Amino acid sequence: MKSYQAYIIDLDGTMYRGTERIEGAKEFVDHLKKNGKPFLYLTNNSSKRPEQIAEKLNNLGVHADSEQVFTSSMATASYISEQKKCADVFVIGEEGLRDAIRQEGHRLVEEKADYVVIGIDREINYEKYVKACLNVRNGAELLSTNGDIAIPTERGMLPGNGAMTSVITVSTGVEPTFIGKPEAIIMNQALNQLGFPKEEALLVGDNYNTDILAGIHAGIDTLMLETGVSTFEEIKGMDKQPTYKSKNLIDWLKA
Amino acid sequence: MKSYQAYIIDLDGTMYRGTERIEGAKEFVDHLKKNGKPFLYLTNNSSKRPEQIAEKLNNLGVHADSEQVFTSSMATASYISEQKKCADVFVIGEEGLRDAIRQEGHRLVEEKADYVVIGIDREINYEKYVKACLNVRNGAELLSTNGDIAIPTERGMLPGNGAMTSVITVSTGVEPTFIGKPEAIIMNQALNQLGFPKEEALLVGDNYNTDILAGIHAGIDTLMLETGVSTFEEIKGMDKQPTYKSKNLIDWLKA
Repeated sequence: MKSYQAYIIDLDGTMYRGTERIEGAKEFVDHLKKNGKPFLYLTNNSSKRPEQIAEKLNNLGVHADSEQVFTSSMATASYISEQKKCADVFVIGEEGLRDAIRQEGHRLVEEKADYVVIGIDREINYEKYVKACLNVRNGAELLSTNGDIAIPTERGMLPGNGAMTSVITVSTGVEPTFIGKPEAIIMNQALNQLGFPKEEALLVGDNYNTDILAGIHAGIDTLMLETGVSTFEEIKGMDKQPTYKSKNLIDWLKA
Repeated sequence: MKSYQAYIIDLDGTMYRGTERIEGAKEFVDHLKKNGKPFLYLTNNSSKRPEQIAEKLNNLGVHADSEQVFTSSMATASYISEQKKCADVFVIGEEGLRDAIRQEGHRLVEEKADYVVIGIDREINYEKYVKACLNVRNGAELLSTNGDIAIPTERGMLPGNGAMTSVITVSTGVEPTFIGKPEAIIMNQALNQLGFPKEEALLVGDNYNTDILAGIHAGIDTLMLETGVSTFEEIKGMDKQPTYKSKNLIDWLKA
């Protein structure tokens, strides 16, 4: 395997599949640790706090400190901080998002918001959409943690945050700024966090439309695995190809 | 005023504004009754049953029988019946929609639906969106009572049914068939109900983008009033103009 100075690693489909560890995940992370390579777990999941995600990884036998987890919620909170300290934010979202916004020193408000932030919210209701629309119509900037249109589950493809966000876009005519993968915003923040220039980092992921495109948009080399959503067959005709392809991380470690 | 054989009359912005009767509404309807002209109240409101709407009109002093009220929910239920008797329907919507679907002899189901029907639902939640998406992905046809993106209220512009429907469209990639104004579907059903050809009917309404365009799409003459949403100034440059314009129904009766 070609060696980089720092690694940005996707979770779902790369480290685990639901509650099951993916082949090579533990070995790959152990290899990075042994060689002293810094790495960051990067996820579009906005609902969980980093400690919860680190705990899940550790329970699956994959080493993780909570400081090594970077979520689209944290990226969204940082994005706001870059523009305004102590902003007033109306949030649709779960614990991970509300927590990240507060941890950055912003204030959660119901009206007169500077920002409206949308993350997946399994407790969504009409009143939340009403407040989001009224705040946006009053001039709040619209952010969305990620544009995923569907979430793969054992029940089938459930509506994702990009789909849930569209209510506000269609009603107000205001397009959101999406923060998570495949946007470069979250990638640049992850590089900042790692403290390495993009030339020295590798993005490892399974989903062409989120992970790999995020790397491509940010100018970071990418390793695409076939352990999750996308297949090499599917992306054959794509204009932009990952830097490397490997069936799984076991093969990559051997290469 | 030019006389027609039958009238299709909008409600919100034409007969009433919130809980207030609009000038000329009572006089216009009394005039039609005195002259024995059949008429139908036509509304994109999918949440109320026709009896509830007739009651509201009567309370405001405007004559209405429940048989004279035709809602986007009733139009949607009829649209299904034209294609399939006793269909299995998954509904997101309020009393007026659920009632209309049942009254046409269809069955309300949670899964294996032939149709997914979306109407405004102030009790919307994530699980309802999940079921709508799963049914659509399993091949159910997607219908939406109306495409209104916003509802004017004293709080401001709240998300309308067209905006709420977009979650399913964005997540599944399946575009809905909209039934209500400005679609011709609801107009043709209203004409059927009245039993008159389109040449003999007049559509009376205030909203250019729903009422007037519905008339234009269905080839029915239109009278645009300035008592609600749209103004004559706003529609000046529009390619398609209403057949008649009148500030209000008092002026129209005098003309």
